[in-house]
Amino acid sequence: MEFKVNSNVLEKLLSKIIPAVPSRTPMPILENFLFDIKDGNLIVCATDLEIALVSSINVDANEDIKMVIPARLLFDIIRSLGDTQISFETESNSKLKLTTENGTYNIGFSSSENFPTIPSVPKGKELVIAGDILKKALDQTAYAISKEDMRPAMTGTLLEFSQEGLRFVATDGHRLVKYINKKIITESEEQYIIPERAISVLIKQLGSQEIKVYLSKTHVSFIIDDFEFISRLIGEKYPAYNSVIPLENEKLLKIKTADLLSTIKRMMLFSATGSKQVKFSITEDSLVVSAEDIDHGSNAVEKIHCEYKGEPMDIGFNTAYVNDMLTHIDSEEIIFKLHSATKASIVEPVEIGEDEKILLLLMPVRINN
Amino acid sequence: MEFKVNSNVLEKLLSKIIPAVPSRTPMPILENFLFDIKDGNLIVCATDLEIALVSSINVDANEDIKMVIPARLLFDIIRSLGDTQISFETESNSKLKLTTENGTYNIGFSSSENFPTIPSVPKGKELVIAGDILKKALDQTAYAISKEDMRPAMTGTLLEFSQEGLRFVATDGHRLVKYINKKIITESEEQYIIPERAISVLIKQLGSQEIKVYLSKTHVSFIIDDFEFISRLIGEKYPAYNSVIPLENEKLLKIKTADLLSTIKRMMLFSATGSKQVKFSITEDSLVVSAEDIDHGSNAVEKIHCEYKGEPMDIGFNTAYVNDMLTHIDSEEIIFKLHSATKASIVEPVEIGEDEKILLLLMPVRINN
Repeated sequence: MEFKVNSNVLEKLLSKIIPAVPSRTPMPILENFLFDIKDGNLIVCATDLEIALVSSINVDANEDIKMVIPARLLFDIIRSLGDTQISFETESNSKLKLTTENGTYNIGFSSSENFPTIPSVPKGKELVIAGDILKKALDQTAYAISKEDMRPAMTGTLLEFSQEGLRFVATDGHRLVKYINKKIITESEEQYIIPERAISVLIKQLGSQEIKVYLSKTHVSFIIDDFEFISRLIGEKYPAYNSVIPLENEKLLKIKTADLLSTIKRMMLFSATGSKQVKFSITEDSLVVSAEDIDHGSNAVEKIHCEYKGEPMDIGFNTAYVNDMLTHIDSEEIIFKLHSATKASIVEPVEIGEDEKILLLLMPVRINN
Repeated sequence: MEFKVNSNVLEKLLSKIIPAVPSRTPMPILENFLFDIKDGNLIVCATDLEIALVSSINVDANEDIKMVIPARLLFDIIRSLGDTQISFETESNSKLKLTTENGTYNIGFSSSENFPTIPSVPKGKELVIAGDILKKALDQTAYAISKEDMRPAMTGTLLEFSQEGLRFVATDGHRLVKYINKKIITESEEQYIIPERAISVLIKQLGSQEIKVYLSKTHVSFIIDDFEFISRLIGEKYPAYNSVIPLENEKLLKIKTADLLSTIKRMMLFSATGSKQVKFSITEDSLVVSAEDIDHGSNAVEKIHCEYKGEPMDIGFNTAYVNDMLTHIDSEEIIFKLHSATKASIVEPVEIGEDEKILLLLMPVRINN
């Protein structure tokens, strides 16, 4: 088998596929690209069994062949070649011979028979969404995904189709983010959970282009430009998150996002490594934020101007969670909706896009006095 | 004790000193800044026992005090404050209270009695050198410093004062770099070895400013702008490196640096992980470079145009060493001076600054056929 390809064209193709190659795996076959040459088309795939990436280019090959090639080695070689024509040739001894004007490179290839089948998602019901809109929704929620495997459903982002809009929900039990795109309305309620690894790879691939999304019971497929991103779905029931969202939080605290974020960044230096606790002491026009690290004998107190309607109260939060939340809010001001020091707090941005809705929930931590 | 200081001024000072704070140490006291307030002057020091950094600013303190303060915590707090006035106040319970318009921060401080004494280098004989010239000399040699502790003298860069100029020499036994600044001429020969850690910290501090260098038998001091960098010297005899530099290498190979570097970058992908071997097969007008990784069944061959005077020969090198050397050469062309496949090779740049001289030595590796 022989074909020729420009190095830059191949580099561009491989750079799109390589994110699916696992860096560590007990299955060495996954460290390869699958090259499937058929009818003048070169299809390149990679998978870590959770996600898969597929793309193709036309090549003028004189024969069909399916083979697996060490992914990092091939990608590094192609990248190092500069702009040149590469001739690929398979030799009888399972060697792939690359020839350029500079030299000759031989690398081993293997049979494709042990390479896992790339799942295919039926291209029936189609959702079309702009890449940047999808990216924002995923960005706004992904940080709250649970890092613990105890409850598998929570190790991904929930996509919930509804009459209210398309909801993106993530929670780790201590905090929750619900982001709604109100433009994507569907009659029937449907739930899909996309794993965290898929979200983090997908976010990097999204620009402003139009994305086509296809869903099956077990997999999701995103068509991005000329390549396809496939992920398995988490086959679990997502927890009934609505039951933890309080409705009667009547104490309202309005504050400038940047002011609070700047204070929280400093509090992170003082809050104890274990509890990461920060205390909010709220009165009519001021929020006193304090943190203490008993082990290191250090503490900090700051006062920020705010608007507050309700009885003065003290409440504790995890500094890191407050920081995560604030760094993901665009709005100049936010509103905390509070009930008591032991009940979930709601946070909402004051300014929000017309087609969006966002609700953040933070569980308080017990204040030690 | 009380004094006030602007946060940006203090941040700038601390950022110069913090590189000497060790990130891991069995001596926790070294994780602190020494604050020595005396006669309206705040002297800040840090040391890891190998290097020390010292600087000072004027502060309007009402009392003299010497104390140690957790370095990273203080630096992180000061950096997070933005541009503001900070009031420092020591409290009776070993707490240091910082007050700004935003809030109050307490951190623990300790007595300075266990903090090591910062060595002082007599400011007698003085060498003045431009920062960028010193930086270049150190940059050009540091990569060849030995990473192994077996021969302590080789774990630093040799500074050798001589009638020929100031020589900077580094070697790990497999390669050697000798860089000479021909402008700094001294009558008597003197040798000083600066440890690798000092070199790597120092390089980052050097700009185009004038540097004053002072040397004692045990320490070196660099005065850079308004701060002092002190390092211990390695108290060992440097190996007689001149005896390994061959003089009769009569076979000359001239080649474009960029061409060879580009090839070597690709060969690094193919040379075996263990030996890192690359083979040069030299004939009159072409250099054939090849590498092979038997474990992975891959190999590469490239041909580069060159000018060569001598009998055709094959010689093997360590790919990583050739790469290190080439990435540190400014000259468009280089000359390899060769003798045989088992004898040291010399490499020299064709273009070189008027006041400079540079010689690179590479030991060959045995070629396996």
